[in-house]
Amino acid sequence: MGFFRPEIEALRGYVPGEQTGSREIIKLNTNENPYPASPRVAEAVREVVEGTGGNGLGVNLQRYPSAMAEPFRQRASVVLGVPSDWIMCGNGSDDILTIVTRAMVGQGEMLRLPYPSYILYKTLAAIQGAQSEEIHFQPDWTLADDFCQARDDLRLVFLPNPNSPSGTVIPPDRILELARRLPCPLLVDEAYADFADANCLDLVGQCEKIMVLRTLSKSYALAGLRFGFIVAQPQMIEQLAKVKDSYNCDALSIAAATAAIGDQAWLAENRAKIIATRGRLIEGMRDLGFSVLDSQANFAWCTHPERPLEPIFEELRRRNILVRYMDYPAWSDGLRISVGTDEQIDKCLSQLRTML
Amino acid sequence: MGFFRPEIEALRGYVPGEQTGSREIIKLNTNENPYPASPRVAEAVREVVEGTGGNGLGVNLQRYPSAMAEPFRQRASVVLGVPSDWIMCGNGSDDILTIVTRAMVGQGEMLRLPYPSYILYKTLAAIQGAQSEEIHFQPDWTLADDFCQARDDLRLVFLPNPNSPSGTVIPPDRILELARRLPCPLLVDEAYADFADANCLDLVGQCEKIMVLRTLSKSYALAGLRFGFIVAQPQMIEQLAKVKDSYNCDALSIAAATAAIGDQAWLAENRAKIIATRGRLIEGMRDLGFSVLDSQANFAWCTHPERPLEPIFEELRRRNILVRYMDYPAWSDGLRISVGTDEQIDKCLSQLRTML
Repeated sequence: MGFFRPEIEALRGYVPGEQTGSREIIKLNTNENPYPASPRVAEAVREVVEGTGGNGLGVNLQRYPSAMAEPFRQRASVVLGVPSDWIMCGNGSDDILTIVTRAMVGQGEMLRLPYPSYILYKTLAAIQGAQSEEIHFQPDWTLADDFCQARDDLRLVFLPNPNSPSGTVIPPDRILELARRLPCPLLVDEAYADFADANCLDLVGQCEKIMVLRTLSKSYALAGLRFGFIVAQPQMIEQLAKVKDSYNCDALSIAAATAAIGDQAWLAENRAKIIATRGRLIEGMRDLGFSVLDSQANFAWCTHPERPLEPIFEELRRRNILVRYMDYPAWSDGLRISVGTDEQIDKCLSQLRTML
Repeated sequence: MGFFRPEIEALRGYVPGEQTGSREIIKLNTNENPYPASPRVAEAVREVVEGTGGNGLGVNLQRYPSAMAEPFRQRASVVLGVPSDWIMCGNGSDDILTIVTRAMVGQGEMLRLPYPSYILYKTLAAIQGAQSEEIHFQPDWTLADDFCQARDDLRLVFLPNPNSPSGTVIPPDRILELARRLPCPLLVDEAYADFADANCLDLVGQCEKIMVLRTLSKSYALAGLRFGFIVAQPQMIEQLAKVKDSYNCDALSIAAATAAIGDQAWLAENRAKIIATRGRLIEGMRDLGFSVLDSQANFAWCTHPERPLEPIFEELRRRNILVRYMDYPAWSDGLRISVGTDEQIDKCLSQLRTML
């Protein structure tokens, strides 16, 4: 047609994990939380649509929302112990990944990411007409010094931590070391950090180049809400805010997210359940002969020393159990299985047992 | 700092109209609808948070939403009489303006817009590192042929219709003529079209280059929801969808927007009220000596043959009435007053009467 930028026409587009409308299917393919969100979320949403809460104006949705999602920033500031102007909210963490890429990486410039990791990062670089460079994890899932090597065109580095699909982590000390050596900002994508033993929030104050990204999709069970936020030093936030859409978070999401992050007791309880079930999943898969990485996220990466994995994925699918089959060229294919409820994981394991 | 693209550091950033937390203030500055949305909206939202509606899965927000906002597309297809795959939804129409600009306008390329119009368009071009070219409206608010003049680097043209701040319209026949002569797509931003006598929806099928943008912020009284959509031929939608974030609309917004567009009786009633009050506002301002353009939107553009306008804006503000003062270099400054309720407009007029 010629109406689109050549980069866009050439793009295959990021294909998100399959969603299903069926009630029968056990859905373990997109790392959603199997439990419903804190009941405070529904309450906060109801208050907005009934015009009784939120802004206290007695109006509901006809007014524009807070451009900077101020109620969430205030609450998150208290919960996380960072100043509110260190926080910028987004329409899901994808919105923030998009904003950061657009703000920092120009046409022809370089974005760095580890391999294997989140496929979307490369798509974001491609949309910018930028380059991307994948640095392979070491066999023990550490990152060698080439991850922080300077190059003239390097503008931004993404590091998911815990990583997907591996579920592995780089310790915060090492991340600080990498960031200090890098010539550009390092965004630590902590989508799964609430399920991990450590996180990098404290590093933001120690190094201007470190930005920490969080989402409410996984640990707060709010994938349907589209709410994420970045923590960075305020002079960074100020520039990033220029690139975001003026009102990028809606009034319902802001109210819901504010209620969710305010309910840390819910988070602690949910986290404990997910971590317990994760152990059950990993142990069960190992018993079945799979090789499974230790995970600090809400999923497990499973390979098998003998069996091809795609047919296992397909057979599970026929049996109404949806996991994610992923094939990373020059590395490995495997099954990424999300941590569901104990019951869901037990069903998955028992189906696998009958198949193998 | 040097961490950001020079285009971003140089940017002032779009400053949205002032929002206020005060109940006393009559807010006539950002073209919000003064009435609450259809009651079906609150009902639909309640069903999602209570897990009783929407996907019928008995789950609420822990699952990812429909990537293409499929329930809305289906409903809008019936209401508007266009195939569902001609529709792409966004997190507010700003999200779609961003997507279209990123998809079509590369670094150094040209975006065209009329002047005066929506200031955000230029900001979007600047974020892309692109150029923007403003073609002035004629004194009678028509567009001369230079608006469709070809140039090698021209990639996209934005045309708000009805326009803001003028409230004026270009007739659909003329828009079709302009689009046919243009070498690139023409996005008709119909944010205010539900308040106008005509719209360009029928043109999309006649000319691949025409794309029509709608928002639920104004005529559906859902500025707080962030929901907009574009209507374009499916081969255009297919490319645009590659650039959007995977899940750019959340489950609550999709349910709410679907309910809203399904309630056309509400829309017709609201539209009639707004149009009646618009007449009252325009007549009242003219009686007070202002020059007021005929408007097909939910606001009126007011200038005054003798009085400076900024002090009037400021004095109104002191009296708890917020209108928008806008100053367009090389054209004019003026007051853009949103159509509120009859009561709000009468208060605004009576305050002006005592001031002048």
